[in-house]
Amino acid sequence: MEFFKATVDSVEKEEVKIGDTKGTFIQWLVTKAQGSESYALRRFIMKPGGIITCHNHKYVETVYLLKGKLEVTAGNQKVQLEKDSYVFINKFVPHELKNIGSDEVIFLCAISYEDDMTIKALEKCSED
Amino acid sequence: MEFFKATVDSVEKEEVKIGDTKGTFIQWLVTKAQGSESYALRRFIMKPGGIITCHNHKYVETVYLLKGKLEVTAGNQKVQLEKDSYVFINKFVPHELKNIGSDEVIFLCAISYEDDMTIKALEKCSED
Repeated sequence: MEFFKATVDSVEKEEVKIGDTKGTFIQWLVTKAQGSESYALRRFIMKPGGIITCHNHKYVETVYLLKGKLEVTAGNQKVQLEKDSYVFINKFVPHELKNIGSDEVIFLCAISYEDDMTIKALEKCSED
Repeated sequence: MEFFKATVDSVEKEEVKIGDTKGTFIQWLVTKAQGSESYALRRFIMKPGGIITCHNHKYVETVYLLKGKLEVTAGNQKVQLEKDSYVFINKFVPHELKNIGSDEVIFLCAISYEDDMTIKALEKCSED
């Protein structure tokens, strides 16, 4: 596709199913199918209490927070994100994302396309 | 880098200089230098009256609007973006971005890394 415009409301929401993930929905905004061969851009909605449990993958990932309070555990660190803060998670680094606020969490997530896009669910990301 | 967190306020703003571009600043949020080899994520701030004049490049580009009213001219189309709408612009498609509101425009912009990252300024993108 040479060029297209869309609004997020027009993009289907799919429930995320990784390990014991709950209350989390993904929208694929831009993908290879539309001509973006190096990266995909997705939008996530996490309900209060929502969590994406520990996992890793070959692709790198950037999470940019648009709304709410998100805790990210990755690479032996635990950080909190608020609006307009972001994290970068490199290849194969185990990570977990958790809505720690009382509102919905919304974030954008850019990932690289790799030869292997497998997501591996892991037991746990931290010592807690 | 395995993992890092940042807030947008900590990232340097550089003035954008493409053709007759004005009132526009870029922040490089995530780049190859930090381990992201396939894509970069940038944030743009356009003052009222700001414009990025017509240009093209080999890399693909996604613009996701966070704030304000942005007009995008690309591929013989002219579209208006408001918060939470986005465009995808494929390789070498000439495009121009213009703040058409009275407030600041803020958008995120994901691009692919290509063997040639040259930006070519062009005379014009539309028949106007």
